[in-house]
Amino acid sequence: MNTETTTRISKSPLTGKEYILPDTNDDRAGIDAFLAKHPGKKLVVIQGMGFVGSVMGLVVANALTEEYAVIGIDLASPGSYWKIRSINEGQFPVQASDPKIELYYQESRRKQNYYATYDPYAYAQADVILVDINLDVQKKSAANKDLEGYNVDLTPFKKAIRSIGQYCRPDVLALIETTVPPGTSQKIVRPILEECLQERGLPTDQLCVGHSYERVMPGPKYIDSIQNFFRVFAGTDEKSADATEKFLRTVIRTDEYPLTRLGNTNATEMAKVLENSYRAMNIAFMVEWSRFAEEAGVDIYEVVNAIRMRPTHKNIMLPGLGVGGYCLTKDPLLASWARQHLFGSDEMLQQSEKGVRINDKMPVYAYDFLQTQYPGSLQDKKVLLLGVSYLNDVGDTRYTPVEAFYDQLNAAGASITLHDPHVLYWEERDTMVNQDLPSLLQQTYDIVVITTGHRDYRGSRELITNLLQRDAVFIYDTIGVLTKEEIGELTAKHPVKVLGRGDL
Amino acid sequence: MNTETTTRISKSPLTGKEYILPDTNDDRAGIDAFLAKHPGKKLVVIQGMGFVGSVMGLVVANALTEEYAVIGIDLASPGSYWKIRSINEGQFPVQASDPKIELYYQESRRKQNYYATYDPYAYAQADVILVDINLDVQKKSAANKDLEGYNVDLTPFKKAIRSIGQYCRPDVLALIETTVPPGTSQKIVRPILEECLQERGLPTDQLCVGHSYERVMPGPKYIDSIQNFFRVFAGTDEKSADATEKFLRTVIRTDEYPLTRLGNTNATEMAKVLENSYRAMNIAFMVEWSRFAEEAGVDIYEVVNAIRMRPTHKNIMLPGLGVGGYCLTKDPLLASWARQHLFGSDEMLQQSEKGVRINDKMPVYAYDFLQTQYPGSLQDKKVLLLGVSYLNDVGDTRYTPVEAFYDQLNAAGASITLHDPHVLYWEERDTMVNQDLPSLLQQTYDIVVITTGHRDYRGSRELITNLLQRDAVFIYDTIGVLTKEEIGELTAKHPVKVLGRGDL
Repeated sequence: MNTETTTRISKSPLTGKEYILPDTNDDRAGIDAFLAKHPGKKLVVIQGMGFVGSVMGLVVANALTEEYAVIGIDLASPGSYWKIRSINEGQFPVQASDPKIELYYQESRRKQNYYATYDPYAYAQADVILVDINLDVQKKSAANKDLEGYNVDLTPFKKAIRSIGQYCRPDVLALIETTVPPGTSQKIVRPILEECLQERGLPTDQLCVGHSYERVMPGPKYIDSIQNFFRVFAGTDEKSADATEKFLRTVIRTDEYPLTRLGNTNATEMAKVLENSYRAMNIAFMVEWSRFAEEAGVDIYEVVNAIRMRPTHKNIMLPGLGVGGYCLTKDPLLASWARQHLFGSDEMLQQSEKGVRINDKMPVYAYDFLQTQYPGSLQDKKVLLLGVSYLNDVGDTRYTPVEAFYDQLNAAGASITLHDPHVLYWEERDTMVNQDLPSLLQQTYDIVVITTGHRDYRGSRELITNLLQRDAVFIYDTIGVLTKEEIGELTAKHPVKVLGRGDL
Repeated sequence: MNTETTTRISKSPLTGKEYILPDTNDDRAGIDAFLAKHPGKKLVVIQGMGFVGSVMGLVVANALTEEYAVIGIDLASPGSYWKIRSINEGQFPVQASDPKIELYYQESRRKQNYYATYDPYAYAQADVILVDINLDVQKKSAANKDLEGYNVDLTPFKKAIRSIGQYCRPDVLALIETTVPPGTSQKIVRPILEECLQERGLPTDQLCVGHSYERVMPGPKYIDSIQNFFRVFAGTDEKSADATEKFLRTVIRTDEYPLTRLGNTNATEMAKVLENSYRAMNIAFMVEWSRFAEEAGVDIYEVVNAIRMRPTHKNIMLPGLGVGGYCLTKDPLLASWARQHLFGSDEMLQQSEKGVRINDKMPVYAYDFLQTQYPGSLQDKKVLLLGVSYLNDVGDTRYTPVEAFYDQLNAAGASITLHDPHVLYWEERDTMVNQDLPSLLQQTYDIVVITTGHRDYRGSRELITNLLQRDAVFIYDTIGVLTKEEIGELTAKHPVKVLGRGDL
C-alpha cells in the first residue's frame, strides 16, 4: 500500500472499520434528504465532531424545550471522516462510561434528527451554528517540553470561521464554544463573518455572535456536564447576548443551573481560560512542595489530606506524574498569548505560563527519579505501565503525561507493556493497550509503574496479592495510589518508591 | 519626658492606662499565690500573650473535660506588659466582635483560673507549656517591598525556648503552636530543651515535644476557630504525639472536629505553611489577571463571581489592594527558608516566594494606578482612606497593605484622613483612626479611597448618597466594593476608578 492510498482512508479505532474518503465535499443530497424529514424545525449545525461537539450534538438533538434538527460537521480527513460515518451508521464515535451517551444517541436515532456531514453547505440553512472545533497551541515535543517558543496559530481556526461565513444566513447565531484566546469572538470571529457577508452582498446588522464556554468532563457524567451545569455566556452585542441566552435555555437545565451573563465576550473568554489556568497553577504550586516533602521525610499525600479538611482548602491539588488533557496544558498559554497579541500588552501572564512549564516538566522529573532510584540501567528492562489515560477512571489520552514518561523509557531501551482498563488504542502513540490485568500479571517484569490513579489500581487487593506472590520487582507509584499500609506490606519483599512520599 | 522614662512605661491602647515596668522579673509571690488557689489541678502555661496565646488561654481556662489552672506569660516590655496587667485587672487585652471572648474571660475571672505573668518561674510547675510566640521574617520596609534579602532570624525564638528549658519539668509536654519553619520542633526545639535539661542534671527521656498548629481567625468566630475546628498534630516521637493528642482532646470539640495525626512534626509544620502559601499564591495568581482584565475592558469581579459558581472553584480569590495579616505575608518565606537552611536543599520554594513578592507589590501598583489616573499632583490633596485593617469587618492592622499605600501617599505630601469602624488606634503607624463616618463625610476631600471591604462601605446607601450630594471628588475603589449600579450612579458626578475593572 503506498502512502497516497493510506491517506485516502479513515479508520475507526472503535470498530477497526475502514472508510474511503470522498473525492469531493459535496453532500447536498444527503443534507437535503435529512432536512426534508424535518420541515419547520430549527436547524442547529455543530462545527467539530470531537469530544465536545459530537456530545453537544446529542444534547441539542435531545433539547429540553424545542425540537431541533441537528447536523454535525467535520472534515473528510483520515482523523475525522470515520466519526461522520459512524454517527450516521449507528455507532457513536465517543466511548464513555456515561450511560446517557448511548441513551441520547439511540433517542436521536429514533427521531432521525442528528445527521453528520463534511459539506459546509449545511451552514446555509442553519438558525444556530455552534463552533466546537479545536484551537491548539504548538508546543515542542513531549519529551523535551520546555515551552520556549510555543506558538498559537489561528490560521486553521480562521479558516473554519470563514467556511461558515461563505454559506451562513445573515441572521444566523454563531455561538463559539471553543476555548479561544480572550478577544477572539469580538476581534476575529465577528469581523470575518461580517466580511464574508459583505462579500456575498448581504447585510451584517442581523448577525449574532455569542460566546459560551462548555465545561465538559469526559467520564461518567459526560452529558450532565453539559446539560446539568452552570453556563457563562456573553454576546458581541446585546442582540447576540439575547439570542445566545434564548438558545441556551432550550438545551440546558437553567432552572437548576442558572445562566450567568457577562458584560462582553472578552469576559467569558477570559473566565474559561482563567478557570483552567487556576487549576493548572494549583497543580504547579504543589510540585515544589512535593520535592520539599521528599527532602524532609514528609508524606505529601498525608499533608494534603489533612489540609483538605478545611472547607476553604478542599480543592487543593495533589501532585503526581504530571498534567494532561486538552485544557490545562494549553489554556494559560492561550491567555498569555492573547494578552500580548490581541490586546497589545507588553506583559505576558508570567505566572500562568510558568505554571504550564512546571507541569510539563513533571513527567521528566518522574522519569529522572526512576533513573536515580532504580539500581542499574533501564536498557532492556521489562516495564509494566499501569495507566495511559491522564485522568482517573476515564479513557482520555489527550496530552497525557504518560506520553513523556513513556517516550523517555522507550528512548532508554526499556521494553514496555501498557495496561489501561479504559484505553483500547493509544492514538497519539499508535499502539494498542492491553486491558486484561490478570493475564498481564502472570508475566515477569523488572519494574511496575503506576501511572494513572484508576480505581482498578487504587485499593486493589488483587494487585497487591499478586505483587506479594512474585519475585522481587521494583515498584514505582508516581501518583500516591498505594496506601501506607500497602507500602508497608510490599516493602517486605520489593523496593517501593513513591513520588512525594519522603523516606523516613 | 526623656527616652529612658518612656521605655519604662507600657501603655494600654484600649484604656490609655500607663503601667510602669517592673524592675526585676520576679513574680514568684504572685505565681505561688495563684497556684495555691488551685491545688491538684494541672497547670498549663502559655508562652506569648498575643492574638493567639491570650485567646488560647481563654479556651484552656474553659477546657471541655478538665479543670486547668492557666498562666499566660509574656515579656515585661513596653509592648506586652500592659497585656499582663490587663488580664489580671479584668480587662481582656484583645478586642474582637466575638461575644464568646468576653464570656470566656468573665468565666475565667469567676473561676480565678487564668493568671498572667512575666516570670519564667511559672514554667517550673507546668504540666503543659503551649508556645504561642511570634516567629517573624525580616523584610525590607513596606514602602520598598522587594523581598530581596529577607531574613529569618531564629535568635528570639531560640531564646524563648531556652527560657522554658531553664525551668521546665523533665516530663513536661511542650506543645508548639507557633508557625515555624518546617523542621523546627525536631531540629531546634527538642535539642534545646534536652540540652537545658542535661545542663540541669535532669533526664531527657520523659520530655514530650509536640506540634499542632492553630487556625485562629480574629473576628466574629475567634473562639470557635480554636475550639470548634479541625486540628492537625504530631509529636517528635510516639510518646509526644500521644501526650499532645490527650491534651488537645480536653480543649477541642474533637467529636465534631476530629483530630488528624501526621507521621512527624516536619509534616504538621509543613501543612501549616503550605496552607497559607496556597492562599497567598492564589491571590498572587489573580494579580496578573486583574491587570489583563483592565487591559481587555473586563470586570474581573464579574468574572470571578461567575467562576465561583463551580464547587471546585469556590475559593478562587479576588484581587485588591494587597495581602495583609501575620500569616500569608511571611509563611511561604518561612517554608522556603527552611528548605534551604534546615534541610540543606539548594533549591528554594521559588513559586511560593514569588507569590509573596507579587502580593507585596500590590499596594505599590494600587498607588501607581492612582498617580496615573488622578489628574495633577497629590501634594497637599485631602485624601480620605476608608479602611485601615487588612481584613473585612475585623480590626487587625498587622501587615495591612494599607500601610504601604498610606506611606506612599504620605511621601507624596497628601493630607490623609483615616477611617475604620474597627480600628481605634493604628499601632504600626502610631496614629489614631476616626470611627465616625457621618461626621467625616461632612468635610471636603479631593480623593476618597476605599481600602478595606468593610460592611460599612459595601452596599452602604448612606455613603453613596453623601457622595452624590457633594462636589466632584475623585473616587478610587481598590477592592471592588462598589457595584456596577453604584459606579453608574456615581460616574454621573464624579470620576470613579476601580482596580481590576477595565473601562469599556
